[in-house]
Amino acid sequence: MPKERRPGPKVAGHGGHFARHKGHAGDRHAPRRERTDQAGSSGRLWLYGTHAVKAALANPKRKIHRILATERTQELLPPRVSAELLTPEAISKLLPQGSVHQGIALLCDPLPDLNLEDELGLKPPGERLVAILDQVTDPHNEGAILRSAAAFGVTAVIVQDRHAPPESGVLAKAASGALDLVPRIQVVNIARTLERLGRMGFWRIALDSDGDSALGEAATRGDVALVLGAEGAGLRRLVREHCDVAAHIPIANEIGSLNVSNAAAIAFYELKRVKAQTG
Amino acid sequence: MPKERRPGPKVAGHGGHFARHKGHAGDRHAPRRERTDQAGSSGRLWLYGTHAVKAALANPKRKIHRILATERTQELLPPRVSAELLTPEAISKLLPQGSVHQGIALLCDPLPDLNLEDELGLKPPGERLVAILDQVTDPHNEGAILRSAAAFGVTAVIVQDRHAPPESGVLAKAASGALDLVPRIQVVNIARTLERLGRMGFWRIALDSDGDSALGEAATRGDVALVLGAEGAGLRRLVREHCDVAAHIPIANEIGSLNVSNAAAIAFYELKRVKAQTG
Repeated sequence: MPKERRPGPKVAGHGGHFARHKGHAGDRHAPRRERTDQAGSSGRLWLYGTHAVKAALANPKRKIHRILATERTQELLPPRVSAELLTPEAISKLLPQGSVHQGIALLCDPLPDLNLEDELGLKPPGERLVAILDQVTDPHNEGAILRSAAAFGVTAVIVQDRHAPPESGVLAKAASGALDLVPRIQVVNIARTLERLGRMGFWRIALDSDGDSALGEAATRGDVALVLGAEGAGLRRLVREHCDVAAHIPIANEIGSLNVSNAAAIAFYELKRVKAQTG
Repeated sequence: MPKERRPGPKVAGHGGHFARHKGHAGDRHAPRRERTDQAGSSGRLWLYGTHAVKAALANPKRKIHRILATERTQELLPPRVSAELLTPEAISKLLPQGSVHQGIALLCDPLPDLNLEDELGLKPPGERLVAILDQVTDPHNEGAILRSAAAFGVTAVIVQDRHAPPESGVLAKAASGALDLVPRIQVVNIARTLERLGRMGFWRIALDSDGDSALGEAATRGDVALVLGAEGAGLRRLVREHCDVAAHIPIANEIGSLNVSNAAAIAFYELKRVKAQTG
């Protein structure tokens, strides 16, 4: 993992980023009542759940406006970070319906746009693995992929801005903190991004159940770009044509395919294993 | 995969299992209107979605009472199987709220209880891999695990009856057909089940982020029982004590753990890979 992405619990740097007014435990009349939609006009979003909130607080790039906690969960916050203290019910009322918040939430801006070349420059050539998601639209799936990407030290996850879920509490919760750990780069055109990666020397693997090679054979020591398609539809032809090899995970015929986040987890594991073996 | 679990599209065997009255396309007044809860008093449940319905129709052990389709989806049914033809909206009204049914659904009984020794007897000793889920309560996670289990030829998935999600449309949808492909065995006590498996010569691996061995080192050629714990809490001490080895999937420190279905997918892949290499 790039060290630059993990500043540790130094949340003092957030000083100017959020209001520090203290609420009262059980206060059912919080100072402000705005229920902000995930894609509200302000662009702000609520993140919630222990892992997602902790990771957002630890990310210096995350601009935070409010922090909500209960008497029980306030001890999870880093020192010198104070929250509005509310009941779990009062927190629920501020969040999108059905949010499983575990008594902790924060209102923040989406992360700033990242530049692919900048992020790749943080890791030495030959050590980089990027995952490219082609129309994976379910935030639970993308969140789980981000979580596995963090677990396996993936350099960046690339999504197409028009066909990816928006940054949201659901995405962040499924990512279990990884949304604030793994660089998530939005691009306009995946085929063109694959061209750029090819010029940088990346070996581009399209993961596809019809792929000619088994994944283990398609793996390599150098920089790798792994392309994952939508469930059902699979990879688009133009995207696949921009890859150096199409590879499959060997599975039984009874079942057509794996869940895309499970396929991603296996691929990250296998690419890392082969690299460790041959490196 | 055990051939016994995959009878192919021989749905003629279902002859007496479901009513064959034809509805009319667009008929908003279906003959019967009962909206059956997943855990309704009848015990019947709705399965929906293309893969789940097709797999249920192909499973001779599945007792089916009604089949719903639209004009568009009826062609997905096997020959000689007829459905009540309804609009998508009329199907939605019969199913639990929010069911993503893709225009196809069926009302059925839960699968009959299976016996562990019977199911294990269908595969030769040394070739068996069973997954044991210790308090994995989220049906999306268990469904994804069943799907990966089918993909990797897992012999059976064992759950504890009190701490597993009930058979439901959500579970079957997430399993994408695997609920009717992989034997799912409910047991009363997991520790005692591990004792039985131990006496049968199974090598019992507890998957745990604190496990001493890396998963690849803990794998073996013979029969394997893989125990997966709940997210967050992990494995219970008593369950872990009944295993021969505790193994971890090597991941970065930044993120505490993998999603349980992603961990299961990696473990199935790795156990199968090591077996193929050493077998």
